[in-house]
Amino acid sequence: MAQSRIEISTSGPGLYEFTDKASAFVRSVASGDGLLTCFVRHTSASLLIQENADPDVRRDLDVFFRRLVPDGNDPAMSWLRHTAEGPDDMPAHIKAALTPVSLSVPVTGGRLALGTWQGLYLFEHRLAAHTREIVLHLSS
Amino acid sequence: MAQSRIEISTSGPGLYEFTDKASAFVRSVASGDGLLTCFVRHTSASLLIQENADPDVRRDLDVFFRRLVPDGNDPAMSWLRHTAEGPDDMPAHIKAALTPVSLSVPVTGGRLALGTWQGLYLFEHRLAAHTREIVLHLSS
Amino acid sequence: MAQSRIEISTSGPGLYEFTDKASAFVRSVASGDGLLTCFVRHTSASLLIQENADPDVRRDLDVFFRRLVPDGNDPAMSWLRHTAEGPDDMPAHIKAALTPVSLSVPVTGGRLALGTWQGLYLFEHRLAAHTREIVLHLSS
Repeated sequence: MAQSRIEISTSGPGLYEFTDKASAFVRSVASGDGLLTCFVRHTSASLLIQENADPDVRRDLDVFFRRLVPDGNDPAMSWLRHTAEGPDDMPAHIKAALTPVSLSVPVTGGRLALGTWQGLYLFEHRLAAHTREIVLHLSS
Repeated sequence: MAQSRIEISTSGPGLYEFTDKASAFVRSVASGDGLLTCFVRHTSASLLIQENADPDVRRDLDVFFRRLVPDGNDPAMSWLRHTAEGPDDMPAHIKAALTPVSLSVPVTGGRLALGTWQGLYLFEHRLAAHTREIVLHLSS
Repeated sequence: MAQSRIEISTSGPGLYEFTDKASAFVRSVASGDGLLTCFVRHTSASLLIQENADPDVRRDLDVFFRRLVPDGNDPAMSWLRHTAEGPDDMPAHIKAALTPVSLSVPVTGGRLALGTWQGLYLFEHRLAAHTREIVLHLSS
């Protein structure tokens, strides 16, 4: 069993890959089989496993969530009450409810058992720059 | 490794916090690092980690999901077939598919590694009162 | 600790149950308490725990997600950019972002601690036939 924390600097909504950081942690502590759990310590950012090939996939994902949950300035969101922290705050909480805050990935022979096209991403939902913290936990 | 089950009484849709119960379980069985997994044994309720400060956040989350998945009485949901258990049943299953049934939170030094504003919630989707069961599993 | 991989053949969108395969794996390796984590190695399919009684629940879930995320041919999705792999590809990634790729279920006394009505499902989002791989990891 091993634990570590990583930080990711964000500059606006979108997907920020951390597969390399997670792989490096796993390599440094595991040689056999195990389970990596990633946990984001925030309520306006989340985690995703998504396609790591075409950047348009990440762009389309971001657009879909912005259309599903528009900013508080949008007339479609006039029912929002939690608006004191800015028009992007409550939509960020909603997007974080629709996507995972914890992800568990098996480790096989000391390596993450990700599929060919899978990458690990932090999904930032706020407009302003943030430093996001992710806890990595390896269990056997 | 340790396991326990807790029950939460609900009285209609919304978020019911159980951070204290989960923390008490962790304190009673762990002094070092580990991983707490919470699992809800139902298909019309789910789990969320969300902001524990402003109650309007929970209210807005509940409203968002009711707007995204209206009750079966709503003309927008006339395509539903599973209606025998009431107009709130199938929408409850859908909301439970859009939000987690299992959550894993690292434990560091005997304490849940939650962020400052994170609380653990049961998300009830049915109108009638229910008793919901959550399994808590601590692994090392 | 034990690990295994299973394959599921799909023939179009919808829910494919694998509770029996997961239970058989757990029975073959566990007699006491533990935690089963299921992980799907794809970005256009996901996992769900849902009602295993009325098939209309699975049909209604599938319809809801198709209405929320229509195929790329639908005028409502004209903003999509990642279209080279077919009109069902980017919507499949979006549905896989809205639903889990990993699920953790406690094992109690050698058996999955599922609720009475809970079944484990692969949620296929692509139109063409696929073979999907799920990693099963049992930790104690």
